Amino acid sequence: MALRVPGFLAAGVACGIKDGSQLDLAVIASERPAVGAAVFTRNRVPGAPVLVSRPRARRGRVRAVVVNSGVSNVATGKQGSRDAREMTAAVGRELEVPAGEVLVSSTGVIGVPLPMGRIRKGIPAAVKALSATGWNRAARAILTTDTRPKLVHEHAGRFDLLGVAKGSGMTMPNMATMLAYLVTDLAIERSWLAGVLHEVVDSTFNRFSIDGETSTSDSVVIMSNGAAGNRPIGAGSRRGPEFERALSAVCQELVEKLAADGEGTTRLADVVVSGARSHAHAERIARKIANSVLVKTALFGSDPNFGRLVQAAGAAGVPIQTDRLGVRVGGVWLLRNGVPVGGRQSLGRAARAMKRKRVELAVVVGSGIGRATLLTCDLSYEYVRINAEYTT
Amino acid sequence: MALRVPGFLAAGVACGIKDGSQLDLAVIASERPAVGAAVFTRNRVPGAPVLVSRPRARRGRVRAVVVNSGVSNVATGKQGSRDAREMTAAVGRELEVPAGEVLVSSTGVIGVPLPMGRIRKGIPAAVKALSATGWNRAARAILTTDTRPKLVHEHAGRFDLLGVAKGSGMTMPNMATMLAYLVTDLAIERSWLAGVLHEVVDSTFNRFSIDGETSTSDSVVIMSNGAAGNRPIGAGSRRGPEFERALSAVCQELVEKLAADGEGTTRLADVVVSGARSHAHAERIARKIANSVLVKTALFGSDPNFGRLVQAAGAAGVPIQTDRLGVRVGGVWLLRNGVPVGGRQSLGRAARAMKRKRVELAVVVGSGIGRATLLTCDLSYEYVRINAEYTT
Repeated sequence: MALRVPGFLAAGVACGIKDGSQLDLAVIASERPAVGAAVFTRNRVPGAPVLVSRPRARRGRVRAVVVNSGVSNVATGKQGSRDAREMTAAVGRELEVPAGEVLVSSTGVIGVPLPMGRIRKGIPAAVKALSATGWNRAARAILTTDTRPKLVHEHAGRFDLLGVAKGSGMTMPNMATMLAYLVTDLAIERSWLAGVLHEVVDSTFNRFSIDGETSTSDSVVIMSNGAAGNRPIGAGSRRGPEFERALSAVCQELVEKLAADGEGTTRLADVVVSGARSHAHAERIARKIANSVLVKTALFGSDPNFGRLVQAAGAAGVPIQTDRLGVRVGGVWLLRNGVPVGGRQSLGRAARAMKRKRVELAVVVGSGIGRATLLTCDLSYEYVRINAEYTT
Repeated sequence: MALRVPGFLAAGVACGIKDGSQLDLAVIASERPAVGAAVFTRNRVPGAPVLVSRPRARRGRVRAVVVNSGVSNVATGKQGSRDAREMTAAVGRELEVPAGEVLVSSTGVIGVPLPMGRIRKGIPAAVKALSATGWNRAARAILTTDTRPKLVHEHAGRFDLLGVAKGSGMTMPNMATMLAYLVTDLAIERSWLAGVLHEVVDSTFNRFSIDGETSTSDSVVIMSNGAAGNRPIGAGSRRGPEFERALSAVCQELVEKLAADGEGTTRLADVVVSGARSHAHAERIARKIANSVLVKTALFGSDPNFGRLVQAAGAAGVPIQTDRLGVRVGGVWLLRNGVPVGGRQSLGRAARAMKRKRVELAVVVGSGIGRATLLTCDLSYEYVRINAEYTT
């Protein structure tokens, strides 16, 4: 199926921010007025592009997005904000739309000014290159240390939904920046779209972790242009749940692609915590496990070391019923009601399960109804290499 | 100077928990009644030895401590508690003191029952081996993957203070358990001793981090037996501050030894955060930086990657004045008032500073008075190897 969404155009060009002829500048635009919503990093040192884009996304009219890779435009002072605004102004001028309807993202090295000379030449070229089938090039232009582009297209019933994303890692100073852009030809009411995006981001992008780091630039943007000709979807619309399911599915599939392409990742794990007093408690425990370097190195070594899961769970700072504590690795119970079970045979089966590409790490922390799942990955030599072997 | 403290005895023996003739059982005892205090892990899945020792330490009469390495007695159910109590009963019987005045620690593999047959034989042997000069053997008997024993002795004025500790890592399943035992011949009031120990632990042991993990077994115990013949030190005593300084110095020196011997550590960093709204805010930021795997891998690679410090600081969830943000690596300013300074030359100087065994990573987050420092270490291939290459 051709990757296209009615009324949307995309392009990726090489403007010289990265070496050689690597694509490093993407534009995504709607041919017609569109509404949009976005979710940004909660990092307290957000990059200039986030600062510029956030109030615009809140107003809800989003006609285009411009993204460069190679330089993040973070920790660049007032010049950084000027540069981010200039990028959106240039796109607006070329597309003949208000700059206030253009969002911007940058991902790459921190503390270096954007090479605006190159970007000034690149933007007209990118806008000129816009086409209904430019998604693959756009998806490649936003990458940093990702090893492959990430696109998901859903043609569900009478509408299209397409998402592109980039994951963790940059060529230099590595940073786990996550960017995702979604477009749909449905007509959707602004405020409802914003609400649904927040909910879906919370249950998809916010439920995976490469290394527990929160980038200064994380952004998820959605645009909806109504080319499908439907009556705008809003609170109570019959088609609302259908769209929400599609959005959730596309985001989750992007998450799986991001996780599988994390820096040095060799293996994924679904951390499943149950029996907590509340979902919030379960989530805190799941996060502690998902980000534990001891758990992540055990995952790398296919070591069914349930002691580390117990330790990480206990370190989350929420109550645990130790006499109900259970651990199941790859479907094999290793600890039940606080006591090891199954002996060496079970450990062997769990170790074999941990050699697979994906394994479930389930921890029961009591008899409550609180439950949470998170997707995480292992911590390998390669992660250390990628993140240590750069020298300024 | 001979390692001895009047009225205290120590021993380390090999009872067969570990392979070969490795020391694996230690006893520390006072020849006369002694008061004690302890600080235990905040992990919500504490090991049986912690559960048994905590109420006893609270009562404040501590005559002896028994410690085994090799098996942690964590996640061992009711049998674990019975075993921990039996260890203290055996020591009490041999020493002819109440079992309620004996504390116990275990460090090692999780989820495996203690080999009580060996320990039952080992305890009489350890008590028989007790001597005023047994500290080195005791310090060795509590080790797991530590590469060297850690002892600090302070002969300050008219009293002695001696501490032994073990750090991060175990032979199998690795876990960053930290144990420390301190003895002094001063007479000290119980409640005052408990207060001082908590304060000192907070400013020493709680201010370093190998990998951000909280063990199920962390314990710091102090015993004071009054052999020095002084009037008991309490609130308002003239000699109180002198003792507190000595305790703080000994604990800090143990911390430095622990940090330098962390799993795979090649380099230490003092994380210094200033300018926060409060000390609590500064500490949250410092912890986020000290535990960031991106910062720790940059430290391993001697990469003056100030973007990672900025990112980690921003991810701590407390306010930051981005226009006041500053980063100084090894004394070299790389970012001031939110803008990079010094260019390539400064980056080169900072990179050279980061090749040293110890480097300061200073982050200014605003113009407030909040300040915190933490000692951390790098994340190396060796850490991944130690923690991944074990297979059950």
